[in-house]
Amino acid sequence: MVRRINLNADLGESSGAWQTGSDNELLRIVGAANIACGFHAGDPLLMRRTVVQALAAGVSLGAHPSFPDLQGFGRRAMHFPAAELEALLIYQIGALAGMAQAEGGRLTHVKPHGALNNMACADAVLARSVVAAISSLDPSLILLAPALSELALAGAAAGLRVAAEIFADRAYTNAGNLVARGQPGAVLQTADECVAHVQRMLDAGGLVSAGGQVIPTEFHSICVHGDGPQAVAAATAIRASLLASGVSLLPLPQVLQPPVDSDVWPAIV
Amino acid sequence: MVRRINLNADLGESSGAWQTGSDNELLRIVGAANIACGFHAGDPLLMRRTVVQALAAGVSLGAHPSFPDLQGFGRRAMHFPAAELEALLIYQIGALAGMAQAEGGRLTHVKPHGALNNMACADAVLARSVVAAISSLDPSLILLAPALSELALAGAAAGLRVAAEIFADRAYTNAGNLVARGQPGAVLQTADECVAHVQRMLDAGGLVSAGGQVIPTEFHSICVHGDGPQAVAAATAIRASLLASGVSLLPLPQVLQPPVDSDVWPAIV
Amino acid sequence: MVRRINLNADLGESSGAWQTGSDNELLRIVGAANIACGFHAGDPLLMRRTVVQALAAGVSLGAHPSFPDLQGFGRRAMHFPAAELEALLIYQIGALAGMAQAEGGRLTHVKPHGALNNMACADAVLARSVVAAISSLDPSLILLAPALSELALAGAAAGLRVAAEIFADRAYTNAGNLVARGQPGAVLQTADECVAHVQRMLDAGGLVSAGGQVIPTEFHSICVHGDGPQAVAAATAIRASLLASGVSLLPLPQVLQPPVDSDVWPAIV
Amino acid sequence: MVRRINLNADLGESSGAWQTGSDNELLRIVGAANIACGFHAGDPLLMRRTVVQALAAGVSLGAHPSFPDLQGFGRRAMHFPAAELEALLIYQIGALAGMAQAEGGRLTHVKPHGALNNMACADAVLARSVVAAISSLDPSLILLAPALSELALAGAAAGLRVAAEIFADRAYTNAGNLVARGQPGAVLQTADECVAHVQRMLDAGGLVSAGGQVIPTEFHSICVHGDGPQAVAAATAIRASLLASGVSLLPLPQVLQPPVDSDVWPAIV
Repeated sequence: MVRRINLNADLGESSGAWQTGSDNELLRIVGAANIACGFHAGDPLLMRRTVVQALAAGVSLGAHPSFPDLQGFGRRAMHFPAAELEALLIYQIGALAGMAQAEGGRLTHVKPHGALNNMACADAVLARSVVAAISSLDPSLILLAPALSELALAGAAAGLRVAAEIFADRAYTNAGNLVARGQPGAVLQTADECVAHVQRMLDAGGLVSAGGQVIPTEFHSICVHGDGPQAVAAATAIRASLLASGVSLLPLPQVLQPPVDSDVWPAIV
Repeated sequence: MVRRINLNADLGESSGAWQTGSDNELLRIVGAANIACGFHAGDPLLMRRTVVQALAAGVSLGAHPSFPDLQGFGRRAMHFPAAELEALLIYQIGALAGMAQAEGGRLTHVKPHGALNNMACADAVLARSVVAAISSLDPSLILLAPALSELALAGAAAGLRVAAEIFADRAYTNAGNLVARGQPGAVLQTADECVAHVQRMLDAGGLVSAGGQVIPTEFHSICVHGDGPQAVAAATAIRASLLASGVSLLPLPQVLQPPVDSDVWPAIV
Repeated sequence: MVRRINLNADLGESSGAWQTGSDNELLRIVGAANIACGFHAGDPLLMRRTVVQALAAGVSLGAHPSFPDLQGFGRRAMHFPAAELEALLIYQIGALAGMAQAEGGRLTHVKPHGALNNMACADAVLARSVVAAISSLDPSLILLAPALSELALAGAAAGLRVAAEIFADRAYTNAGNLVARGQPGAVLQTADECVAHVQRMLDAGGLVSAGGQVIPTEFHSICVHGDGPQAVAAATAIRASLLASGVSLLPLPQVLQPPVDSDVWPAIV
Repeated sequence: MVRRINLNADLGESSGAWQTGSDNELLRIVGAANIACGFHAGDPLLMRRTVVQALAAGVSLGAHPSFPDLQGFGRRAMHFPAAELEALLIYQIGALAGMAQAEGGRLTHVKPHGALNNMACADAVLARSVVAAISSLDPSLILLAPALSELALAGAAAGLRVAAEIFADRAYTNAGNLVARGQPGAVLQTADECVAHVQRMLDAGGLVSAGGQVIPTEFHSICVHGDGPQAVAAATAIRASLLASGVSLLPLPQVLQPPVDSDVWPAIV
């Protein structure tokens, strides 16, 4: 049974005069913030403010880099030569690392956004480009990637610390992939469903598909969302449920370290 | 008499498919590269390539941040609240620092570009914003700023190491300002004129105005340009002339350190 | 006493994935839509959709061009040579005119946005650039400009049809300028205040300052806003109040035409 | 044998401070200019200047719209829903139409750029989106598209006037496609080769493949390039050769009209 887990959310996804998300609420819920780096959302001032807030909340700082696509919110497939993609990623992560440094903090992790993340989860070559960018910039950065994805595999193969994440509000296929948006049941709608979904996976020590099949796998972080009051309610409920069941909620680096009381470890099968 | 000096130039100012500048030639001439950070010119891939080339050439790596103005090449006056400007600068410097780190190098300095530089040289409030951005990000970074400018003063007042620069191809007023472009004689046209201008200032230990007046001031670096074959020829001639007269040409950090043979120091009045 | 008036509002000011404004509500209230053209807000798809909606609602189509400043929502002062500014405006107006044409409609007017509008209202040289852009593109376009502004004067001097606008929610100085935001009382907060303010100006046939002074001037349109439920409520109340007092609410071109029953005319002193 | 032909070239592909191309030279050579619309190159001021120059030279004005990709010069594959792509195209074409209108001219044609063009030449669905955008904006616009392409077919099917183009400097496969760049012989290097290639196709009344096979097809325009002195020399030589062999070089609309002396027609098999 899982005893220690991290909650992560994407933050700082407003842009200029346009507001979105529930950053204040999420910073009271999660232990890791994936902060937009200006390519799909966010801007330098917002990045700095989000870093300040996340540091004040004791939340791990992560870069959330994207394809360069403000109009499409980084959700459009794009295609770059490996060298260009790596440079795009280093640019964004470096910019956010600068914000962290300016505020006396430090990046702990990187989680790619949107179409980049989706594509790197399925495409080993693209996954290696993402991993190469992180490794060349700072091999001590944690890669936050979906459990069992090509991205997670590429990170581990390159020697990065990889935090595997599961999704509180997304159904899985029997193969361990996300049920595609648009399919019935792909996105869980209520807080209760999300809480139950998470609890099932914690109990099972792995992904649990929509059909009830268990795909055993280690995971370290649960991704929650903040777009809309319902999403915040679900994230709040998940947090409360985890705490009530005795799970420790930790910043991202801590869930990757062996617990102090070593006989508890390994908690995750 | 000045015995040790740095030559600096702006590099990496192409953009996407558009080429400009003479980076290869300049990297054989200068000791410090001010690399565009994507806001007035440059892009992530070009930034990384320029970092690689500058490191290979043993040239100091500097960030050359700008107002966000690709269409205007950063030459347009823009107005930002201090907090926003500081964030814009940290973003750019951080991004380039990431490129340096990814290539095993390290930024040594920051030189603002274009309208931002011009405005910060005349406006003490703006100068303090630029300095605050650098100080908060990394107080070990050198500020490369025109001799006697508000920007140089603000940097020194805040405890930054400041490298004062003079311009090889620009005439000065008796007050120590640049003669405005558009005025007759503002820009020196030939390599011979530039060489003589530089030599006069080195001999005088200060700026020498178009009218022949000396404004004594310490300086550490000479700015040369690479736009057009004539500019490269002038830069080449300046380098040769300096070497012929026994001046040491050094990377930027070294010209700010006391010379090993301390009786030579202080070389600059 | 004013008998015929237009209500106008800025529409289509979302951007990509970010939503703002109350376009659906405003399209049931106003007779003229000023549609963002992609430089401070809006994007091609949203422009086309807003055109479709405005045409369906029988609302006049206007271009709402801006300085190129998505990050700052066009509220930052920028400075362009006249030729460049004119080209920026023609580009935006032409793009929106294309959307109108693609949907079988036609632009009726142009209203500059944000900092561009503010600056052109005070600066006769800039105002002439705006007017020159409109005149060269299509001299049949109406210029929608604040009553008594340099922009309105420049438009009239160049032979453009000018629709003078007043603001329902902004207080005026005795000189006929807007009380600066930040000053106490600059922005009227409640629907009742806005209704009363508008009614006073209609009765007086001119601007009425915060101090109660009347500056007689013709006006043709009332600007209302849709940012927030309060603004929509105020716009709704203004519309209802105007209709209740027997004023005709018309699309923009119609308020500039003499009324059919000529003894009613001139309604505006 | 072909008696009347148009020469076309892409113009206005500089961007801000960055210069590229040989617009002045090309305007003395070609009869149709495809002008960049700001999405892959060009900017509003350059668009207006290019329109002024093209009108002065008596050259047909065409829009050269692209995917939004300044960094990649529009050469990257991108993917948009049909409604969004159509809006992107109408935006660009409308903007350029505005420039033409402001200068007393009128767009005659549209030629998509780069990756958009390549993809629309092979993908009938994408081709229909391009055609739908043009048709909805102005069905009198000519579509300038590669001979035998899906794009040309879609334009004709929708009732657009289609001008089929051939490439002076590109080899064809036996199937009538361009030999892919990177393949040996894909791009003809010398003016002599280009002149001979064009002449063969004029004589044959169709495409002539690298292997000498003739694919009979009507064509109306020859695409020439201006990137580099060699390209301009080739374009100059092609023009001279055509004139020497008695072919009439015409603006784009004229080559689509039946010749006055009808017994000459049809010139193109």
